[in-house]
Amino acid sequence: SDRLEIVMRYEADRMVNLVLTDEVVLPERDVILEERRSRVDNEPGSQLRETMQAALYLNHPYRLPVIGWEHEIRNLSTETALAFYKRWYAPNNAVLVVAGDVDVDEVRHLAEKYYGKVPAKAVPERLRPAEPPQRAARRVTLESAQVRQPSLSIAYLAPGYNSPGGEHAYALQILNQILGGGATSRLYRSLVVEQGLAASAGSGYSATAFDMSSFDFYTSPRPGVDMDTLEAALRAELALVIRDGVTEAEVALAKRQLQASSVFARDSLGAAPNVFGRALTAGRTVEDVEAWPDRIGTVTVEQVNAATRTVLRDEQSVTGLLLPKPTT
Amino acid sequence: SDRLEIVMRYEADRMVNLVLTDEVVLPERDVILEERRSRVDNEPGSQLRETMQAALYLNHPYRLPVIGWEHEIRNLSTETALAFYKRWYAPNNAVLVVAGDVDVDEVRHLAEKYYGKVPAKAVPERLRPAEPPQRAARRVTLESAQVRQPSLSIAYLAPGYNSPGGEHAYALQILNQILGGGATSRLYRSLVVEQGLAASAGSGYSATAFDMSSFDFYTSPRPGVDMDTLEAALRAELALVIRDGVTEAEVALAKRQLQASSVFARDSLGAAPNVFGRALTAGRTVEDVEAWPDRIGTVTVEQVNAATRTVLRDEQSVTGLLLPKPTT
Repeated sequence: SDRLEIVMRYEADRMVNLVLTDEVVLPERDVILEERRSRVDNEPGSQLRETMQAALYLNHPYRLPVIGWEHEIRNLSTETALAFYKRWYAPNNAVLVVAGDVDVDEVRHLAEKYYGKVPAKAVPERLRPAEPPQRAARRVTLESAQVRQPSLSIAYLAPGYNSPGGEHAYALQILNQILGGGATSRLYRSLVVEQGLAASAGSGYSATAFDMSSFDFYTSPRPGVDMDTLEAALRAELALVIRDGVTEAEVALAKRQLQASSVFARDSLGAAPNVFGRALTAGRTVEDVEAWPDRIGTVTVEQVNAATRTVLRDEQSVTGLLLPKPTT
Repeated sequence: SDRLEIVMRYEADRMVNLVLTDEVVLPERDVILEERRSRVDNEPGSQLRETMQAALYLNHPYRLPVIGWEHEIRNLSTETALAFYKRWYAPNNAVLVVAGDVDVDEVRHLAEKYYGKVPAKAVPERLRPAEPPQRAARRVTLESAQVRQPSLSIAYLAPGYNSPGGEHAYALQILNQILGGGATSRLYRSLVVEQGLAASAGSGYSATAFDMSSFDFYTSPRPGVDMDTLEAALRAELALVIRDGVTEAEVALAKRQLQASSVFARDSLGAAPNVFGRALTAGRTVEDVEAWPDRIGTVTVEQVNAATRTVLRDEQSVTGLLLPKPTT
């Protein structure tokens, strides 16, 4: 913390006086190309996720990979990087998160001293394309000789906190915990433990997206189990929760687990600032983050069941299959 | 043709002096909304095609419906219409096609007289996003209580004349004629006549696209035939042509049929100017259009087979299923 002032001075300077030349930009572009090559283009699972993402959103740019398409990265230049920098980098368009052995008054003083003198900038209005109604279930199949362990995933378009349907966001976090949160979850118990069909099973959901998010399920078979059997078993669990809903006991347990996780998160100097930074850049407030355990605590069984039936609909889903290439 | 001058005068005037007010624009917007409602949102087949199109292109804007999404049409205003008009309408960005009982010198004189005095405009460079490599087969299923006649279609991403792979464009037109061009085509004979599985079967391909086009197959079952059987039969025909290719006799017949169709097209006063207008706005020339029958005539069996194996690959395809909603 005794270097805080120098770091803030450098960062504030970098917000406005950055010097970019081909000598520094072009090697970085090669780094990104190499990153894409190793993490996506040589990873069938990543290729499948990329295609599923493109299929999940009909209109919204979340369909595009964050790292970019290879042929577009290749065409980026020092000029495009600078244009982006000049357009978006400004203190009025940034969130500063400082965590550690610091004093609030001192941080505020330094922030005003260094960022305060960087001029604000009129950043362009963000155009946020919305999703049209989705009416047809999609399915993406990737076969590759590189695949040793097949897997199945299903992604449902789901609201984030701020998007249409955002009133379901807390209930969906409870649902995620009940269905797919760890070894006590419904999916793990049913597919892995009781039926012995799967090597893994779970779910994932993040409400912290500016627009529509997704609610994801994933599982991979034990050796010898065919994918149709596994898919039928997963879909049977989903049909069950859609039909019968969740129980009071499940909701109560999920609340305790989620609230405990938010307490544990405070133990890590990395996790909490990350949560705040992500929330603030996605349109949430500090108060939203701090009230999260209480709001999770107010979710009812009826709200979980309503959220389940709103989100788990085939016509707003993409199913992904990762398969070994058959040797024909 | 005695009104040609007045029409050209009006059209040239409309290119630059158009007056748009809310009184004329907003009712037209309602007309488009109604058109979308009746042709897409109340037609499960159109909904499926719209979702297939969105799944076929991972990055290129051909994925978006030409008419627009309903929620975006609703937000268009007189200002957005005028901005589009001011940006793109200019004689240097237009193609004038005149057909009928006219004289070339007279048309040229009138064009210079009326369009010649409209100032040219620096139209913005067109940004043409390209497709990344496609690696995963996609499948779209739409179930609706409105569906009486189920159907199956498969769309393969395919080159147009000007896109990467454009050297296959003429061969693909021959392939389209052989596989799906009318009652003598392979698919019709096999699925409809010989196996009696289908009520209809055919294919479609247009090379006149600025960027990547698609090569489409479609079929619908006879009553009592299940979709899996029909799909297996269609895929068997595709596997056959990929494995064994086409014959000299098939290519020769397809050439005669296509060349005859271009002669017949001249009989219609609507068809020929439409062909020229579409070609010129998609980056082709008058010479390209006039040389088309000759170029079709030079395609070889080997070229058709190479084009077949380049295009008919699962990982660059979308399969679409239109099904009646099961009564569960």
